[in-house]
Amino acid sequence: MPTAFLKHPFMSQQALSECNDEAMVRAMLAFELALAEVQEASGAVPEGTSQQMRAQLEHATFDTAAIAQGIASGGNAAIPFVKQGRSLLSDELKRYWHQGATSQDVIDSALMLLLTPRLRALDDLLVRCCTASLALMDAHADTPMVGRTLMQQALPITFGVKVAHWAIGLEQSRRRLAGIELPIQFGGAVGVHSGWDAQGLEWMDALAERLGLAASVLPWHTDRYPIHNLGTALDAVVGAAEKIAQDVALLTQTEVGEVAEPSAPGMGESSSMPHKRNPVRSALIRGAARQVHGHTSVLLNAAAQPLERGLGEWHAEWAPLMESALLVEGALEQVAVLLEGLEVYPDNMGRNLAATGGGIMAEPVARLLTPYLGADAAKALSAEAAEISRRDKRPYADVLADHAKVKDQIDQVTLRKTCDPALYLGSSQQQVLRAKRWLIKS
Amino acid sequence: MPTAFLKHPFMSQQALSECNDEAMVRAMLAFELALAEVQEASGAVPEGTSQQMRAQLEHATFDTAAIAQGIASGGNAAIPFVKQGRSLLSDELKRYWHQGATSQDVIDSALMLLLTPRLRALDDLLVRCCTASLALMDAHADTPMVGRTLMQQALPITFGVKVAHWAIGLEQSRRRLAGIELPIQFGGAVGVHSGWDAQGLEWMDALAERLGLAASVLPWHTDRYPIHNLGTALDAVVGAAEKIAQDVALLTQTEVGEVAEPSAPGMGESSSMPHKRNPVRSALIRGAARQVHGHTSVLLNAAAQPLERGLGEWHAEWAPLMESALLVEGALEQVAVLLEGLEVYPDNMGRNLAATGGGIMAEPVARLLTPYLGADAAKALSAEAAEISRRDKRPYADVLADHAKVKDQIDQVTLRKTCDPALYLGSSQQQVLRAKRWLIKS
Amino acid sequence: MPTAFLKHPFMSQQALSECNDEAMVRAMLAFELALAEVQEASGAVPEGTSQQMRAQLEHATFDTAAIAQGIASGGNAAIPFVKQGRSLLSDELKRYWHQGATSQDVIDSALMLLLTPRLRALDDLLVRCCTASLALMDAHADTPMVGRTLMQQALPITFGVKVAHWAIGLEQSRRRLAGIELPIQFGGAVGVHSGWDAQGLEWMDALAERLGLAASVLPWHTDRYPIHNLGTALDAVVGAAEKIAQDVALLTQTEVGEVAEPSAPGMGESSSMPHKRNPVRSALIRGAARQVHGHTSVLLNAAAQPLERGLGEWHAEWAPLMESALLVEGALEQVAVLLEGLEVYPDNMGRNLAATGGGIMAEPVARLLTPYLGADAAKALSAEAAEISRRDKRPYADVLADHAKVKDQIDQVTLRKTCDPALYLGSSQQQVLRAKRWLIKS
Amino acid sequence: MPTAFLKHPFMSQQALSECNDEAMVRAMLAFELALAEVQEASGAVPEGTSQQMRAQLEHATFDTAAIAQGIASGGNAAIPFVKQGRSLLSDELKRYWHQGATSQDVIDSALMLLLTPRLRALDDLLVRCCTASLALMDAHADTPMVGRTLMQQALPITFGVKVAHWAIGLEQSRRRLAGIELPIQFGGAVGVHSGWDAQGLEWMDALAERLGLAASVLPWHTDRYPIHNLGTALDAVVGAAEKIAQDVALLTQTEVGEVAEPSAPGMGESSSMPHKRNPVRSALIRGAARQVHGHTSVLLNAAAQPLERGLGEWHAEWAPLMESALLVEGALEQVAVLLEGLEVYPDNMGRNLAATGGGIMAEPVARLLTPYLGADAAKALSAEAAEISRRDKRPYADVLADHAKVKDQIDQVTLRKTCDPALYLGSSQQQVLRAKRWLIKS
Repeated sequence: MPTAFLKHPFMSQQALSECNDEAMVRAMLAFELALAEVQEASGAVPEGTSQQMRAQLEHATFDTAAIAQGIASGGNAAIPFVKQGRSLLSDELKRYWHQGATSQDVIDSALMLLLTPRLRALDDLLVRCCTASLALMDAHADTPMVGRTLMQQALPITFGVKVAHWAIGLEQSRRRLAGIELPIQFGGAVGVHSGWDAQGLEWMDALAERLGLAASVLPWHTDRYPIHNLGTALDAVVGAAEKIAQDVALLTQTEVGEVAEPSAPGMGESSSMPHKRNPVRSALIRGAARQVHGHTSVLLNAAAQPLERGLGEWHAEWAPLMESALLVEGALEQVAVLLEGLEVYPDNMGRNLAATGGGIMAEPVARLLTPYLGADAAKALSAEAAEISRRDKRPYADVLADHAKVKDQIDQVTLRKTCDPALYLGSSQQQVLRAKRWLIKS
Repeated sequence: MPTAFLKHPFMSQQALSECNDEAMVRAMLAFELALAEVQEASGAVPEGTSQQMRAQLEHATFDTAAIAQGIASGGNAAIPFVKQGRSLLSDELKRYWHQGATSQDVIDSALMLLLTPRLRALDDLLVRCCTASLALMDAHADTPMVGRTLMQQALPITFGVKVAHWAIGLEQSRRRLAGIELPIQFGGAVGVHSGWDAQGLEWMDALAERLGLAASVLPWHTDRYPIHNLGTALDAVVGAAEKIAQDVALLTQTEVGEVAEPSAPGMGESSSMPHKRNPVRSALIRGAARQVHGHTSVLLNAAAQPLERGLGEWHAEWAPLMESALLVEGALEQVAVLLEGLEVYPDNMGRNLAATGGGIMAEPVARLLTPYLGADAAKALSAEAAEISRRDKRPYADVLADHAKVKDQIDQVTLRKTCDPALYLGSSQQQVLRAKRWLIKS
Repeated sequence: MPTAFLKHPFMSQQALSECNDEAMVRAMLAFELALAEVQEASGAVPEGTSQQMRAQLEHATFDTAAIAQGIASGGNAAIPFVKQGRSLLSDELKRYWHQGATSQDVIDSALMLLLTPRLRALDDLLVRCCTASLALMDAHADTPMVGRTLMQQALPITFGVKVAHWAIGLEQSRRRLAGIELPIQFGGAVGVHSGWDAQGLEWMDALAERLGLAASVLPWHTDRYPIHNLGTALDAVVGAAEKIAQDVALLTQTEVGEVAEPSAPGMGESSSMPHKRNPVRSALIRGAARQVHGHTSVLLNAAAQPLERGLGEWHAEWAPLMESALLVEGALEQVAVLLEGLEVYPDNMGRNLAATGGGIMAEPVARLLTPYLGADAAKALSAEAAEISRRDKRPYADVLADHAKVKDQIDQVTLRKTCDPALYLGSSQQQVLRAKRWLIKS
Repeated sequence: MPTAFLKHPFMSQQALSECNDEAMVRAMLAFELALAEVQEASGAVPEGTSQQMRAQLEHATFDTAAIAQGIASGGNAAIPFVKQGRSLLSDELKRYWHQGATSQDVIDSALMLLLTPRLRALDDLLVRCCTASLALMDAHADTPMVGRTLMQQALPITFGVKVAHWAIGLEQSRRRLAGIELPIQFGGAVGVHSGWDAQGLEWMDALAERLGLAASVLPWHTDRYPIHNLGTALDAVVGAAEKIAQDVALLTQTEVGEVAEPSAPGMGESSSMPHKRNPVRSALIRGAARQVHGHTSVLLNAAAQPLERGLGEWHAEWAPLMESALLVEGALEQVAVLLEGLEVYPDNMGRNLAATGGGIMAEPVARLLTPYLGADAAKALSAEAAEISRRDKRPYADVLADHAKVKDQIDQVTLRKTCDPALYLGSSQQQVLRAKRWLIKS
């Protein structure tokens, strides 16, 4: 395979180990055995058939290399798997194996089976991220920092409200993902249960129940809504993760220094530059996210599939869908660690709040002065004082307090309050409370 | 503007006329006036302010060309619009205009306002498509045709069940779209209602109600979940449309001829080839869909936005989002006409069912013969007869009936029934019934 | 790893085996050893150093699993590889190992080294495809078939000219790919050879020569033009392959039957439908192409990388770039087999040319009749005769010859000639000749 | 049309005015008149025909609204344009109008004609950017600043070398674009000049020459290499622009402050925050680039077109291709202004170089001390001193000079030199020289 060095670092190792070739074989087998069971339950195969089948295959060793090699001639893994499975069965059982099914039934259903624990794992990780976010929101509900728009300092916010926005981003995508159904696929050669009439739909429903998958309205061989729905929901999750990684990367910049990724032995070390700690987790999250967007774009472009089975469109979905799940899980594992161990530096936030002199407080100061000086003069004076403050490195309030036009009119307490970013936080605290209510009710 | 010839044919003309510059100005104005109203209701501006504001602006003429020109220096349309709006107000009202708002509040909310009737229109069109599909499903519940996988003839289905699959594709995406919320955006400069504290969230909620938008948990300046959610839902709709267009295009091929786009004067004519009728509607749908996928990919890649406001990421969303809506509406208008007027040719479906001789019925015939001949001989005989049938252009059942090994063993009625594609439709009819129940309950 | 069943069938097996973890280690090692050699040649390390280094490492066993595990903390494979390499060296050599280099130098250069034989393999495959195309062009320069626009029968072409268009598509992309340079990457920590001044550029040039890579103007850590250039060139190749696969899939449809994929034992068999032969190669090519487009979209969106090293953008390139190469090679292997063994059915092409009665010849017939009947009457008559021909399944020329207005005016020979698609091939033959000249000159 | 506010700000205004509906009509007309001329030159139409045609049409008023409306039924603008053109001609000329051509010939060639001046404009802009870059490279060849990897401070570079990397990025993409050919399209209904035999290719060549377009090997109705080649080359250009905008945005951050976008009245002003200057040009460039990537992804996915004419694939190319050109031109106009007027703050670069105390110089200091203290002690001492320097805000060299283990061993001059970032610039200056040579030779 193409060197794993290039892709696996972005993926969940746990997920990788549960989605390998053996797991795929087990998932395909689970489908076929469940099919025999529902057919037996409906009287379509002799009593005892499914149990014998299970006995003969459940612990059989499938030759994954042979399956891998067999794919080229049939175009998918189900064809050589079904052949191999049949060869492992005793003669009287062969005819009941894969009965009424087509290879797309096997592959699609097996993918849904492999993805079922992945969605659970993603939900767990998102809950973990939410818990960590709530702790940060509590700890920093009153920690002022500067808000930045178009990456320029703008006005104060709190670090708590920033985390609240992150948490809502994650939780929205968690709720969307939680609503995603992984449906059974079962339709036979052309999706209409040829030769089995009404039984086909009954088996389809029974299969869903037995395998723990969602019921389908109808087979969806070329109605790829379930794939589109799942793929775009995964993309939404990774977008929320990517947003956090981007903010962390920006706030971690040497000149900003407001947060740092959790330190861990060897993590983010540079071999040549001892002073440096690279935000490696953010890099991995962002790297994963971009690859997921590419995979999602494949799914969007493959959603319309011709007639009763795709000719390449279906085949193109497999890897992007599976890899998206593994990449998103990998990204969330990093986000969870990030949020749980994020180093937050309120002092540096304070330092940066002061970086423009009083520039970022010029607007409330101008509002304060307007009744005394008129709007235009108030604006000019507040801006001029900010410039002096920045140049002379003196506190903004001091500069203002010394100003002839100010000192007689405004009392010191009011002036200093108006200049204090920590008192100009708008709805930051209320937003944190509101976010908590919304996050918890889920 | 870049020549409209290249893009407008794919878009809804109705939608185009409701989403032009004037409409955008009206939407921005609606936001600002509603803001003044909720602020007045909360006592933050003097009584009567909002009414005067409305009186002075509602019928004022905004200079859209000046706004267009002003965008370059501020980076978005709200900045010159707000300036122009303020200049149109009497002096005492100027200070209450755009109070507490930022340009992203104006733009995002205005886009949501423009999109509200579009989502309604899309829902109407999807309902119309569903109605037309139900009619086709009823009319063709028993019309046999050949199912095709990897674009090769496989086994019989009905045209009704094909339409049922189309309809489910559309309806799934309609339900997803129907669940999409278009939320109010209101957060002020850095998203925390600087200077207005708790009132900010109250105004945000009141604005949503007044403007008929969904409430937001918090401002979403850099939490672009709502855009991702909407953009991917639109993409799902157009994917369902694209699937139908692709099937129609394939079934309309000269050699297949099973359906035709509704004829209309001049529609699909070729200037140089009088015999030809091009599936123009399918081409337009497919052209629209591909453009939407590109737009969606922009939205996915722009979902993670830095800090408190994007620097290009936000800006990149505007056109792709709006154009996606217009393209999807354009595509659905075509799908509705297609489904309402689709010409269906059961005779040609019958002819194509016979094209392989009995090839496509060889599988049920082999099943019939197996008890008498054994599995291998049965399979060989059924395939051989199919080949003779195709070569000599004789009915498959006749060839079989003449065969020495068959005529003594199988009665004619059973044989002919087994060779009849119209009797081998699997769950086609049941699927139509099930689909109808599911479609109607929505 | 995620189950190989889902992705490897689309890739070249040869390429897979040459791009695995071991190959990546060897490529990184080749870079480091070449670096020591050029540094020794320039006097920057003691004589004999590089030879000793090579002796100690060339046959050393690297622990790829340990490298894989080490990536998580540093963010790329070079960091653990460099550590492991250093630990394998004797103490006096350690300080000369990886001297002046940064991990991006190692990774980028190693990727270029892995890709060098891939580009050669792609060129070989494209030449093989061209040769096969030339044979088809010769064999079918005069084989008439119907040309189809918007998938409707239009006017006659030859199969030879169709292949000529395919071949030009492939050859254009081959020439573009042949012009792609795989450049050395060497810039040190921040891309300016810190601590080594002018020597840095000299080593960079010497490294390129020693490793058989292209020279760089400057290090390109965040100037990703080479990656964009390569990635889009690969995409162009796969686009040309995808076009062929799409045409083959359409022409292979049961009702069309003009070509078939080369038959091979077990290839394209359907387990449940004995009459069916699936165009599996076309499906695999189309599946590969779609995945490549997704990968390319990742590369486009990652081309702009921040400051002196990407934070996720760089990381996101690795897998998409490498996998694109393997997918394109896999697709071309299929195209080569397709073109070399394509089954062509001129009889079916003839049958399809007759499918519209004379519909597709109505235009030249109308031209013939115009001088005698006037344009409008000529057009009407030619269309009417085509309809009769199609309905009664009589040759178009016979129907026309019987027509009162025709038989007295037009001699039989002329009439039959005008109705003969094989005589209305336009520049088909000339295009084949011209294409051959252009293809051969390369 | 959808509100221009959302898209036009990203586009070149000049280009917009030259690519509107009227321009498209003129381009289609140019094609048709040139066709008549080459046909007349070859004797296929009576002498004087083309001149009369030109006389009747060159100054005729085409009804663009009627053309726009006519597109829906034919699927492209050429069909109603050809109809309208014919209706404007005198009867005897009508039959020579559009002779041998198909609508795709008209549209594709007209697009190439519209794009010809755009490629020239892009080249001019890129040359202008190169000139501005050269000036910055000269002015700042010796201006030290800190290089940043993964957005963390790493080691010193110069601002000159950073600009050199930008310039090479732009120039590489300029050279690629300069090699792009815009070919004539002429093939008739099915691409083989039906009815005109060898003359077709002659006319095709003559048309190219007459219209100033590149010659084609063969018609390229479904060989979309020229579009892929052009689209990806445009994307490469915008990627180089995006890289610059991203760096400018990062360097402009309040806490970094190393450069600023050129100031201009009203440019980047925030209505609510007087202290703020937004990097609006960077935002517009980045917004444009992202939209181009989406358009390019449409082109990649539409490159494989079926048989002799696309069914939606071709249609999907038009707007993305044309808009990409306009967006790239818009982006380059901004880049040119940025580079020509960029405000550079060497003092702030110096301040940031000192931000880590001596952290970024710890590596050369450790190298200096190693011979005296051994590698490990040297490394520890250099790092410890950096930490003291940062904490106590004392110059790194002073802290080191006071250190007992240093002051006796290293002379002051050497020590201070080693601590001076301005003396640790690696190949920065040499890279600038090398880049200049390479840029100028073009």
